[in-house]
Amino acid sequence: DASLKVFSLNSNPALAESIAAQIGTKLGKCTVTQFSDGEIQINIDESVRGSDVYVIQSTSAPVNQNIMELLIMIDALKRASAKSINIVMPYYGYARQDRKARAREPITAKLMADIIEKAGANRMITLDLHAPQIQGFFDIPIDHLQGVPILATYFEQKNLEDVIVVSPDHGGVVRARKMADRLKAPIGIIDKRRPKPNVAEVMNIIGNIEGKTAILIDDLIDTAGTITLAANALIESGAKEVYACCTHPVLSGPAIERIDNSKIKELVVTDTIPLPEEKCIDKITELSVASLLGEAIIRVHEMQSVSILFD
Amino acid sequence: DASLKVFSLNSNPALAESIAAQIGTKLGKCTVTQFSDGEIQINIDESVRGSDVYVIQSTSAPVNQNIMELLIMIDALKRASAKSINIVMPYYGYARQDRKARAREPITAKLMADIIEKAGANRMITLDLHAPQIQGFFDIPIDHLQGVPILATYFEQKNLEDVIVVSPDHGGVVRARKMADRLKAPIGIIDKRRPKPNVAEVMNIIGNIEGKTAILIDDLIDTAGTITLAANALIESGAKEVYACCTHPVLSGPAIERIDNSKIKELVVTDTIPLPEEKCIDKITELSVASLLGEAIIRVHEMQSVSILFD
Ligand SMILES: Nc1ncnc2c1ncn2[C@@H]1O[C@H](COP(=O)(O)O)[C@@H](O)[C@H]1O
Ligand SMILES: Nc1ncnc2c1ncn2[C@@H]1O[C@H](COP(=O)(O)O)[C@@H](O)[C@H]1O
Repeated sequence: DASLKVFSLNSNPALAESIAAQIGTKLGKCTVTQFSDGEIQINIDESVRGSDVYVIQSTSAPVNQNIMELLIMIDALKRASAKSINIVMPYYGYARQDRKARAREPITAKLMADIIEKAGANRMITLDLHAPQIQGFFDIPIDHLQGVPILATYFEQKNLEDVIVVSPDHGGVVRARKMADRLKAPIGIIDKRRPKPNVAEVMNIIGNIEGKTAILIDDLIDTAGTITLAANALIESGAKEVYACCTHPVLSGPAIERIDNSKIKELVVTDTIPLPEEKCIDKITELSVASLLGEAIIRVHEMQSVSILFD
Repeated sequence: DASLKVFSLNSNPALAESIAAQIGTKLGKCTVTQFSDGEIQINIDESVRGSDVYVIQSTSAPVNQNIMELLIMIDALKRASAKSINIVMPYYGYARQDRKARAREPITAKLMADIIEKAGANRMITLDLHAPQIQGFFDIPIDHLQGVPILATYFEQKNLEDVIVVSPDHGGVVRARKMADRLKAPIGIIDKRRPKPNVAEVMNIIGNIEGKTAILIDDLIDTAGTITLAANALIESGAKEVYACCTHPVLSGPAIERIDNSKIKELVVTDTIPLPEEKCIDKITELSVASLLGEAIIRVHEMQSVSILFD
């Protein structure tokens, strides 16, 4: 289909290749480099006039570089007369800054939505937003996909016995519930409480985990503090073994060391954020969201082609 | 004046301090740091409710970091009920990407204007835009200041004899003309031509420079290729000595080495972009734009206060 073009920027080149293969096309030709002073230079090396263009870019680290690449690419595509500019953002960065928790805080997740739209995006496909409310920050259509089925399928194939799916906090219970339904397992919740200010948090476990195989699930793992403490608390409370999984492996700062030293037997993640070599430790298994995103692109594109009939 | 608040982000802390001192105020309290994953975290540590706020930030290197700091700060100020958000941008980055010179190029200078406005800025004070047309990229008022008077005053005080002000290209003649008027000197122009493709450029000098003291002037010096070749060509054509000056010392890549090895006797710049220690070589003199910007802030603020009378 000549009117469908997929371009990759610098955040996820390998995932972008797989997505293009999945769709049965080649990545569009473009070079995204830097001038000597660090300003981003984008050259789109083929016509996009009249095409439905899909741009694949996560706003993972280096987040400010990656968001600027995306905005500049959207600007270039718009001025090159693309018919539609569709952003495929496997990981949506700055999503935790989604509300004013304290006075005078920014809501950067909304700012991101505003500037992506202002640059000229027409639609976005994304995965497991840290807060689903972020969909409402946009005026353009958002396709919000979920990583749970991919993670659940992997664990199903392991044929683990006596499984309990555990949410590391109250915010993640809906996600844990979905996973548990897929695995036909019960759920547990880690109920963190700080008895007094400046006293260490207590990890109270809701649910019976004695002798069970626990699977911790979260949307993202950043410094891995919460998840590794939770895993250790589960083992101390009698869990037989602990797996952990998440869609977005942010894994910054001490994350890898903490995971390596924790009681987590295996951490299962997806490739919404690529793992650099130094983060590819034995404990970590990476699954791909390429088919999920590829199918979403095909679905959206079919709809876009149909809508032409009514133009 | 309690309703005037000046905040500095991370691009020009020293200049921001001088501007605040010039105005007779202290910098507003805020901390601009990074979370573990590289996302920017801004805490504004004092009320800005009802204040006219001035935010000092150049979009110099690291340009993508600096623009994002600015956007997030604007978002935070807007949500904290600042009365007006005024951006003081001594150096406007991405200004050279101000038109489509080739097919499918972005116009990043316009994108910058769009996202700064979208974030919520009400006014901008800036200095020597690479192209004055960039003012028209904004719908908010722009105060466009010039560095020529500061540079000219410095050279006046040197009492150089037999001066000729030289523009390194045809695009800079208006600026050279202004400098020459201030110094009561004639102007010269370097007329670069490439006789054939893939043949080295020829630097043809328009104007009589024999035995003269030449002062090269440009708005910005980046890799310093043009300016150092021009200086050497002037000496070869009989100039007694060559000074160079610019408002914005971008000085990326091989710039410092080229300047050090060139026939330039002294390079005079301003502090719109701070010089890190490794760029502070003997040949470079730095002048401050603090009073120029401080006075502009006072002027704008008086006008804002007056307009209240008519509210
Ligand atoms: N990149 C980040 N790293 C760590 N904490 C963050 C980050 N961005 C925002 N936050 C903070 O995380 C909190 C929201 O996290 P959550 O409660 O999981 O939605 C807010 O207090 C934010 O200030
Ligand atoms: N940061 C940069 N460094 C070097 N060249 C650039 C930069 N940004 C834009 N350009 C190019 O510089 C040219 C414009 O420069 P000028 O003719 O001086 O206005 C355009 O061809 C741009 O593609």
